[in-house]
Amino acid sequence: MWHDTYLRAVLQPDYTYASEHLLPHLFDALTAHALMLQECGVAHAGAAAGHLRELRRAPFPPYDPRVEDVFFTLDQELAARDPQAAGALRTALSRNDLDMTIYRLSARLRLMRALARVLTLRRVLLDFAGRETETVIVAYTHHQPAQPTTLAHYLTAVENNLARDTERMFGSLTRVNLSPMGAVALGGTSFPIRREVTAQLLGFDRPIENTYDAVSASDWQVELSSVITVTSTTLSRVIHDLLFWASRGLLSLADGLVQGSSVMPQKRNPVALEHARTKFSKAIGITQSVILSSHNVPFGDINDPGPDLQPPLNSMWQEFREGVELMTVSLQNPIINRAEWLREARLGESPVTELADAITRKTGCGFRQAHAQVKGLLATLREQERTVDTLTRADLRGAGIEMTADELASALNPSEFIARRTTLGGPAPAAMRPHLELAQARLARDLDHHTALTDRFVGARTFLAGPHPATESPADSLPAAPHPTGGAP
Amino acid sequence: MWHDTYLRAVLQPDYTYASEHLLPHLFDALTAHALMLQECGVAHAGAAAGHLRELRRAPFPPYDPRVEDVFFTLDQELAARDPQAAGALRTALSRNDLDMTIYRLSARLRLMRALARVLTLRRVLLDFAGRETETVIVAYTHHQPAQPTTLAHYLTAVENNLARDTERMFGSLTRVNLSPMGAVALGGTSFPIRREVTAQLLGFDRPIENTYDAVSASDWQVELSSVITVTSTTLSRVIHDLLFWASRGLLSLADGLVQGSSVMPQKRNPVALEHARTKFSKAIGITQSVILSSHNVPFGDINDPGPDLQPPLNSMWQEFREGVELMTVSLQNPIINRAEWLREARLGESPVTELADAITRKTGCGFRQAHAQVKGLLATLREQERTVDTLTRADLRGAGIEMTADELASALNPSEFIARRTTLGGPAPAAMRPHLELAQARLARDLDHHTALTDRFVGARTFLAGPHPATESPADSLPAAPHPTGGAP
Amino acid sequence: MWHDTYLRAVLQPDYTYASEHLLPHLFDALTAHALMLQECGVAHAGAAAGHLRELRRAPFPPYDPRVEDVFFTLDQELAARDPQAAGALRTALSRNDLDMTIYRLSARLRLMRALARVLTLRRVLLDFAGRETETVIVAYTHHQPAQPTTLAHYLTAVENNLARDTERMFGSLTRVNLSPMGAVALGGTSFPIRREVTAQLLGFDRPIENTYDAVSASDWQVELSSVITVTSTTLSRVIHDLLFWASRGLLSLADGLVQGSSVMPQKRNPVALEHARTKFSKAIGITQSVILSSHNVPFGDINDPGPDLQPPLNSMWQEFREGVELMTVSLQNPIINRAEWLREARLGESPVTELADAITRKTGCGFRQAHAQVKGLLATLREQERTVDTLTRADLRGAGIEMTADELASALNPSEFIARRTTLGGPAPAAMRPHLELAQARLARDLDHHTALTDRFVGARTFLAGPHPATESPADSLPAAPHPTGGAP
Amino acid sequence: MWHDTYLRAVLQPDYTYASEHLLPHLFDALTAHALMLQECGVAHAGAAAGHLRELRRAPFPPYDPRVEDVFFTLDQELAARDPQAAGALRTALSRNDLDMTIYRLSARLRLMRALARVLTLRRVLLDFAGRETETVIVAYTHHQPAQPTTLAHYLTAVENNLARDTERMFGSLTRVNLSPMGAVALGGTSFPIRREVTAQLLGFDRPIENTYDAVSASDWQVELSSVITVTSTTLSRVIHDLLFWASRGLLSLADGLVQGSSVMPQKRNPVALEHARTKFSKAIGITQSVILSSHNVPFGDINDPGPDLQPPLNSMWQEFREGVELMTVSLQNPIINRAEWLREARLGESPVTELADAITRKTGCGFRQAHAQVKGLLATLREQERTVDTLTRADLRGAGIEMTADELASALNPSEFIARRTTLGGPAPAAMRPHLELAQARLARDLDHHTALTDRFVGARTFLAGPHPATESPADSLPAAPHPTGGAP
Repeated sequence: MWHDTYLRAVLQPDYTYASEHLLPHLFDALTAHALMLQECGVAHAGAAAGHLRELRRAPFPPYDPRVEDVFFTLDQELAARDPQAAGALRTALSRNDLDMTIYRLSARLRLMRALARVLTLRRVLLDFAGRETETVIVAYTHHQPAQPTTLAHYLTAVENNLARDTERMFGSLTRVNLSPMGAVALGGTSFPIRREVTAQLLGFDRPIENTYDAVSASDWQVELSSVITVTSTTLSRVIHDLLFWASRGLLSLADGLVQGSSVMPQKRNPVALEHARTKFSKAIGITQSVILSSHNVPFGDINDPGPDLQPPLNSMWQEFREGVELMTVSLQNPIINRAEWLREARLGESPVTELADAITRKTGCGFRQAHAQVKGLLATLREQERTVDTLTRADLRGAGIEMTADELASALNPSEFIARRTTLGGPAPAAMRPHLELAQARLARDLDHHTALTDRFVGARTFLAGPHPATESPADSLPAAPHPTGGAP
Repeated sequence: MWHDTYLRAVLQPDYTYASEHLLPHLFDALTAHALMLQECGVAHAGAAAGHLRELRRAPFPPYDPRVEDVFFTLDQELAARDPQAAGALRTALSRNDLDMTIYRLSARLRLMRALARVLTLRRVLLDFAGRETETVIVAYTHHQPAQPTTLAHYLTAVENNLARDTERMFGSLTRVNLSPMGAVALGGTSFPIRREVTAQLLGFDRPIENTYDAVSASDWQVELSSVITVTSTTLSRVIHDLLFWASRGLLSLADGLVQGSSVMPQKRNPVALEHARTKFSKAIGITQSVILSSHNVPFGDINDPGPDLQPPLNSMWQEFREGVELMTVSLQNPIINRAEWLREARLGESPVTELADAITRKTGCGFRQAHAQVKGLLATLREQERTVDTLTRADLRGAGIEMTADELASALNPSEFIARRTTLGGPAPAAMRPHLELAQARLARDLDHHTALTDRFVGARTFLAGPHPATESPADSLPAAPHPTGGAP
Repeated sequence: MWHDTYLRAVLQPDYTYASEHLLPHLFDALTAHALMLQECGVAHAGAAAGHLRELRRAPFPPYDPRVEDVFFTLDQELAARDPQAAGALRTALSRNDLDMTIYRLSARLRLMRALARVLTLRRVLLDFAGRETETVIVAYTHHQPAQPTTLAHYLTAVENNLARDTERMFGSLTRVNLSPMGAVALGGTSFPIRREVTAQLLGFDRPIENTYDAVSASDWQVELSSVITVTSTTLSRVIHDLLFWASRGLLSLADGLVQGSSVMPQKRNPVALEHARTKFSKAIGITQSVILSSHNVPFGDINDPGPDLQPPLNSMWQEFREGVELMTVSLQNPIINRAEWLREARLGESPVTELADAITRKTGCGFRQAHAQVKGLLATLREQERTVDTLTRADLRGAGIEMTADELASALNPSEFIARRTTLGGPAPAAMRPHLELAQARLARDLDHHTALTDRFVGARTFLAGPHPATESPADSLPAAPHPTGGAP
Repeated sequence: MWHDTYLRAVLQPDYTYASEHLLPHLFDALTAHALMLQECGVAHAGAAAGHLRELRRAPFPPYDPRVEDVFFTLDQELAARDPQAAGALRTALSRNDLDMTIYRLSARLRLMRALARVLTLRRVLLDFAGRETETVIVAYTHHQPAQPTTLAHYLTAVENNLARDTERMFGSLTRVNLSPMGAVALGGTSFPIRREVTAQLLGFDRPIENTYDAVSASDWQVELSSVITVTSTTLSRVIHDLLFWASRGLLSLADGLVQGSSVMPQKRNPVALEHARTKFSKAIGITQSVILSSHNVPFGDINDPGPDLQPPLNSMWQEFREGVELMTVSLQNPIINRAEWLREARLGESPVTELADAITRKTGCGFRQAHAQVKGLLATLREQERTVDTLTRADLRGAGIEMTADELASALNPSEFIARRTTLGGPAPAAMRPHLELAQARLARDLDHHTALTDRFVGARTFLAGPHPATESPADSLPAAPHPTGGAP
């Protein structure tokens, strides 16, 4: 019936993908529809729900090139069992609203799983930061040593970003978790149905208001991939720094996360992070497919942002999840070369901002002039090929600055540099402690919210699947939220 | 001092862009910083604020290749007037936190302006929909006639999308409107400053918690461009349909929005919509530059998502604004060919879903069977080269279906097709009226929110600019929210 | 040994992909390396080649989490058989040069297969055009009817584009088909090897000159995906037009290429073209992953443009191939509604350019004035609600133009419009015939070139695989060039 | 006449862009058209050419909102001077073919200018490499030290990439440099014109064969931006390495290419390279706009890949040119810290591949075993916290390997490591010398080709502009090819 090329390039891969990834959502949506019809008095609809609960526990039929897709395969199975139930189920139902419902249920699940990974990474970052509030590192700006700070300061900055990403993800969920059911082809139906009922059974927040919108909108898919892109770009930047540190021996990954070389015997490559970087690049790249599939196409029911986009979206979620997981395990127990980092802070020029600050306080001539004075001192030192730690009171005096030996030593000490930076959000341990506590509290709230949502979505499925648990692939089960005490994702 | 190439390719264009687009934000940020320092007891800081309020009313100096950028130009102007004030102002200040503050203030303004355009388009769509609740159109799916619906149904679906976009925009604002001030280079300062004060003076919601994050994060820029991409893809789809309608003479633009041809005398091209399409393509394309500028670069202070990205971001906002404006004026008073649309609905096959629905109700045999019966009837008609409106009771009887003539006529009448679709969110006027009312109420709330925010941001600037109004380019003034009664944007 | 997450997210999927897609290339590269070493006098290297020829005919071992990848799996197999041969084979060999070689061999194969599909589509387009040199269509510009032309004129324009794409593909092949072998880790080796020999055995044009370049360059991958993007954008535009025609009943696809609806009995959706559109969108989207994997990463041996990018590249080639195939079968025997197209050309205003041309010739007053006169005539007709075919000599005379009835009729006749356009490359059958002949001749040359390359690459593999044919998956066999007489791809 | 919004968002910026960037091409195209018409016997066409040659020397009229664009502005100027010439010029002319011609002429110029920059960078790289054939550096793979090589080896690898990019650019030129003139609206004309004549006058290789193709194709624009993307990704990778070296003090930029900090007195940021990176990111990002403007739009004359795309394309060329220029000046005289690089090579583990090679040669047991032995030795050294340069004969003997002290010292000496790598394309000075000579010869050939093309294009313009030199903006003049002896671009 269908052209060989069409079967090979479209129908068969679509069936394969749906069989592997979408069946539980298909059964959920149809069962909810049947129960709604039953409530609206459609004869045989209740029977349809019962059959669906049994069929979902049976093996799903393998691909048959004579049948269009999984929907018609199930329709035939049902008709073979109970033609009247099959007939009833088709009332006020189209693949248009059904497919969009399935894709939203699938996206909701994947979003929840991605959130679980992000929450776990936040936990690992905060735990890591908690251990490194006194670890001096040299922060770089424009690829040059800038100022001493702590590893904790850097790590909480990353966590703060991910907290905003969590906000974005929860925000996008409110626009994903809406029900297209009852929109039928595009204009609803002349049968008296109750869309709120189907929506509630499926754990959706509410029906999408306009039925044309329900089968046409692709904004939620573009938003989801955008949210993934935002997080992925941030994490690609963090990986840049981690690999920069790794290349200089400041940070090493655990044995299970490195690879050697077939020709260079000394190699211990931090490949887990390198692969994470590529996974983020690929996740961002897939966003482009999502955008293009919604670009300059009709605003109406079409295949582009529909079935054809689901496999790339699935890849996007997988690359993202795995990228976050690789970062998470990399940061769970890396080896930190604290001595080398401290050495860089002591011998390099990074603490001289504080020298200018100290001069400002001492002379009262304003930071503008102190900055110029320190710049002059450094020029002299460089000419004399001296490092900053050799700076003396005499040098200062030569520049017209009077300072005690203690004041000078203190101004150049990286740890004191840090301890003085008690500004809100600064690296001083005194500022870092309340900052970490706030971050932990926010994470706890986000974890609670994730758990509550998970319970609600699992509850909806449990009810729709019926008394006996459905035998569904673990890939589709909802992830447990990460345990407050951390642990592997 | 700087290499010619560097001057030409970097410093001069950066100065030009900053002069044209960023000065009011620069003055705001520095004035707020000075007032905060004054409150913290830094000598001469109050004087600095006063000088800044005067300097902002003077013409800004033209480009001088010996001075690095607008900041140092202003620093020199200030030092020439009052060296102590200039020195004080540099306390606890870096171009790192200052620049990020300016970019956020600029983004906030542009986001508010984009929102104003989107709100106006929503108003125009709802007004248009209100006039077309009875206008029959044929909705297409998969590029083929599908079902009759109303123009209002289509237009409110679009507005509903834009309402979600408004949500996204307001959501992104909460992550843009945060203050980096006081982060200085990256680690705060050893001077006792109060970041909350600067934040409040600038109309920010609060300081960004972590100072390293404050000067490093680019997530908010990627989010802003993503939000623009979401809306742009949706509108590119709507433009597809509008141009499809225009190509078939169903919709024509007003005279001021079409262009002719130098060779084909008959031409009246709907170019306003075509240009809007390209503007959205370009806005989406610029998102790519935003993403790439935050991809695999250090997570720290760098130029990529900083000064170098501001001109493309400005272009993105402009393309987006103009795209929305072109759509808005195109939809304010287009000519609708209602007769032709109704003809298509009557003579085509689009109403036959209702025939199957009617058979279902009549026979009670389920929609599944009715669908097959109608498919058979259509096959016969096509063989006989007859249109659907010639279907008779005898035809139906031949397929084993008994129906009165009235029932048949009613089942095939597009307007009755629509009137029966009273499903929540369906096209029936009875369903559309409450739908439109809800949409209008939501829009009114969003307009109020926009107005309140505008007042707050304008208030902050008014205070910082001082008693005499600053002479600032109109391009930087905040837009009025669209008037409730509609009107040009 | 490796962390569970690393095994699951990296090593196992890498092994799976390599097993399914890369083994023949791995065997080819290693066998060529062994034969080269043998020629350079390395003991046991000849034996290694012999073992490899046998091992490639045995089933490849399933995944074992203790072994890193397919290379070390094979290394162990070989060592178990003949430790000295295994030791010899590792001389002057790294996975760095080996992997890059394999990826280039794989890309070469995929490029040849993509070329075969493009050549087939060109054949189908030219055959189609050959049948439609007299079929009048109305060409649109800016979404409005512009001028009558022929379907052949449109189709050969598309083929001409694809001929340029073929040039690009052959051009990119010359930069893909270069040998990294012998670059070892990056700096070659201290053993005296002959890189030209390995290159020649593998059917490469020559070794990549610089060994650092050989293991680092990713330009060829970005070029390949760019070439695919160029063709995909062009074909996305063509699909726009085909679907525009399909939506108006001017073109219908064969039965095996359409799908119906579960709710709308009348539906016959041209889904083959819709899916082709999405496939091109996805192919273009994957280009983004390719670009990002080479963006801001070290120029040296890394994973990003290496193993991690191969699965997306494979998807890109597959989406592209299938998109072209779906277009090809759609255009092999579509139903063309010639009558309706002619009706549109006769009743619409599209032929009036010729009226202006005729007036220009008649009056000698220049086209500029004639254009204005025709514009005036049309304004009058529109006011009177008359169509262009009702234009009379009196109307012309009213505008000061004298013309015979025959001249007027001829000027408005779409077929005569076309027949007069004998400009080089114009639609007149007299111009189209030589144009088609040239296109056919160019296609024949391109087919010959493709065949010669195929023979050479197949010859290299046949020799390397040894006397007994290797049992390799059909997916990796080289495609036959399309037969000159057309036929399915 | 036009809507305010349309004027502001479309017509006025289009006029501004055309006035600044396209006028010389507009005059060239119209003059060539007029001369062709004259040759074909069209009355007054010769006069039109004469007027155009005069008008191009006069100031072009400022924007007038009553006139559509620069074409009609010029049309009116001409008509005011000589109505018959103006009328004649419009024969067989449309803005469709005219615009496409102008965009191709503009692209040709920009491509030639980009080529000049790439050729200059190649020259600088080869000169730099010529000075650094003995400079030891440590090459990294997977972000870890891998093997010693020379700076020349790295630099020629980059140059080799750019040589392939040059090939791509010259290749794309053959598809850009084709004439659309004479295609008129899309179907040619009923006037007997000679498209070859116009093509030749404009320096095009030949007319685009199919007239529909001539006004519709956008493949050449997507190809041009793709070519820029290929080069930009490669250079982004090189910048990664240069900044990595700069961050470790191995490479510093000259004074005119660094910037300091307003708060950190020690700063000397290598910002020229950082800005170059962003410029490449932006050039790649703009490619996305180019792709989107040709995605899912009609294959026919439309605005998307036409006027609306020219400003972004211009930005793409500019960002690319400036990025290459910033790299070029950065690499003209950077400070290389040879001592520090050598120290890293001596004290680190990067030379141990050669130790395994030496053991292989010594023991004859195959590289596989030698690799394992060296790995074992390194494990012992690391346990004992010893560096590789402390390895003794006794250590080797403990692992069962016998080697003289000289052999051991030689195996671990980075310079000898390099000197032994005489493989074709390897870093040994003996291999590098012929490699550099070949590269220089290839560059000389490419420069000659560029010069010949420049002469031809300049010649065409000189003839068309007429006896008196046109006063055209320097921005549109063709660049001189870089002088063989190097120098600033």
